[in-house]
Amino acid sequence: MRVGAPGAEKPVVRVDDTRYVDVSDLVRDFDEAFFGGDGLRRLAEPVAQRIAAGETEPFGSQRIGSPIARPHQILCIGLNYRDHAAETGQAVPAEPILFTKSPNTLIGPNDEIRIPRGAAKTDWEVELGIVIGSRTSYLDDVADAAAAIAGYVLVNDVSERAFQMERGGQWSKGKSAETFNPAGPWLATPDEIPDVLDLNMWLDVNGVRRQTGNTKTMIFDPYFIVHHLSQFMVLEPGDLINTGTPPGVGMGFKPPVWLRAGDVVELGIDRLGSGRQQVVGPR
Amino acid sequence: MRVGAPGAEKPVVRVDDTRYVDVSDLVRDFDEAFFGGDGLRRLAEPVAQRIAAGETEPFGSQRIGSPIARPHQILCIGLNYRDHAAETGQAVPAEPILFTKSPNTLIGPNDEIRIPRGAAKTDWEVELGIVIGSRTSYLDDVADAAAAIAGYVLVNDVSERAFQMERGGQWSKGKSAETFNPAGPWLATPDEIPDVLDLNMWLDVNGVRRQTGNTKTMIFDPYFIVHHLSQFMVLEPGDLINTGTPPGVGMGFKPPVWLRAGDVVELGIDRLGSGRQQVVGPR
Repeated sequence: MRVGAPGAEKPVVRVDDTRYVDVSDLVRDFDEAFFGGDGLRRLAEPVAQRIAAGETEPFGSQRIGSPIARPHQILCIGLNYRDHAAETGQAVPAEPILFTKSPNTLIGPNDEIRIPRGAAKTDWEVELGIVIGSRTSYLDDVADAAAAIAGYVLVNDVSERAFQMERGGQWSKGKSAETFNPAGPWLATPDEIPDVLDLNMWLDVNGVRRQTGNTKTMIFDPYFIVHHLSQFMVLEPGDLINTGTPPGVGMGFKPPVWLRAGDVVELGIDRLGSGRQQVVGPR
Repeated sequence: MRVGAPGAEKPVVRVDDTRYVDVSDLVRDFDEAFFGGDGLRRLAEPVAQRIAAGETEPFGSQRIGSPIARPHQILCIGLNYRDHAAETGQAVPAEPILFTKSPNTLIGPNDEIRIPRGAAKTDWEVELGIVIGSRTSYLDDVADAAAAIAGYVLVNDVSERAFQMERGGQWSKGKSAETFNPAGPWLATPDEIPDVLDLNMWLDVNGVRRQTGNTKTMIFDPYFIVHHLSQFMVLEPGDLINTGTPPGVGMGFKPPVWLRAGDVVELGIDRLGSGRQQVVGPR
């Protein structure tokens, strides 16, 4: 995890819901250099020693940031749940649909989502995020993908549907506004996830359940996605891949439901914790 | 400019075709921190002093890198020249079409372009690149965009048309292979460009002229583009925006012409220099 003020977060390792081990003297940040330098493995022993020695600190009321620093790239997979494709009226894709999100959209799990100026169709998307653990290119086999994954995070792939669909044909314009990628609270390493293809996920808006899903209905699973993307580009350590959303986005309701200033979004995925984002108006 | 081995380039300031001033003791790199920290303005006086004192060095046979470090983001505008839209059989867009390119595609102007594995339709695109000079969001007016531009660079927006058009609907898959963004040789500051809307541009493949254009036939000019994009996302200092290509891409010929290992691409834009890229096969 990363705790502290925006832009000044320090890297820590979560012990339980109330306490963490400060590792800011051991690693600069949970960034490309950390993941690419085998940082997760190298942290294991000193963290175990500190826990054994009782060197833990309380979260208290500290802000929680995104569990990873701003990555080289945020990649996103579209229409990756069968039921979500159906609710948007689009065919199940033959292969993963890739689009991107500006890396500077990344915020903490309990930060505010800011509606962009001129926006009228701002929407939510609870998603499983993959964090890449090593420089990855041309994986030979889907089975090689697991070794390239540092861990998983809960993300909200916030989307402005008018900017996404009605402003030029490609999707990036509706995915890249500031605050549009809440992430965390923590990165879970693969050993902490018994089965990544059986994680319940949910999202509420103002206390009303809007999304209910499970990763077992993904069309393309995380290993398939990492293998696939590695054929088209070089994935860097720390890169974030948002893997698509289950049914229940605002666009899918009749009539559609859009986020407004004052709304509260709460979301979670098994083993990845939960977040709470207040929606605020344009600045 | 940046000279030296890939990944170990040092920042320099070009004096003329043969000599430069080394500024690697003054700035770490031409990156986000440099542009965002008013680095260009702060370099002016020490560089003038070094030139006056004769403290210049010869380029010699040193490799020339991309003139900017890997940016936060590479944004690209599609179909931004009237004649290019026509040659691809697509309508002139009502507003800029945005897509993105992986930032780690950036290479030097004379480096090799590597054809991706499984690729059959690799294509060229000479383009004017904009480098952002300051954190930019919600510009009030197109007239404010000039102050947000650090300078201009020559780029080749290399594209794999099958990956771009036939692999899932969005374009990023065909734009992001390693080596797909040759840039440079230099960044020209706006004061060095008398009229950014009257720059001739050209591209040859194996000595045959394929692209001939001029920025005056752009549909959306650089100021319009920066103002427009700032409404959808926060542009970071050092971000690169490829502004679209004039007619003459391989896709537009009947039959189409694609790059093959052994080909040589040469390209240039008035005031922005020229580059020469050997095409090599997949690794």
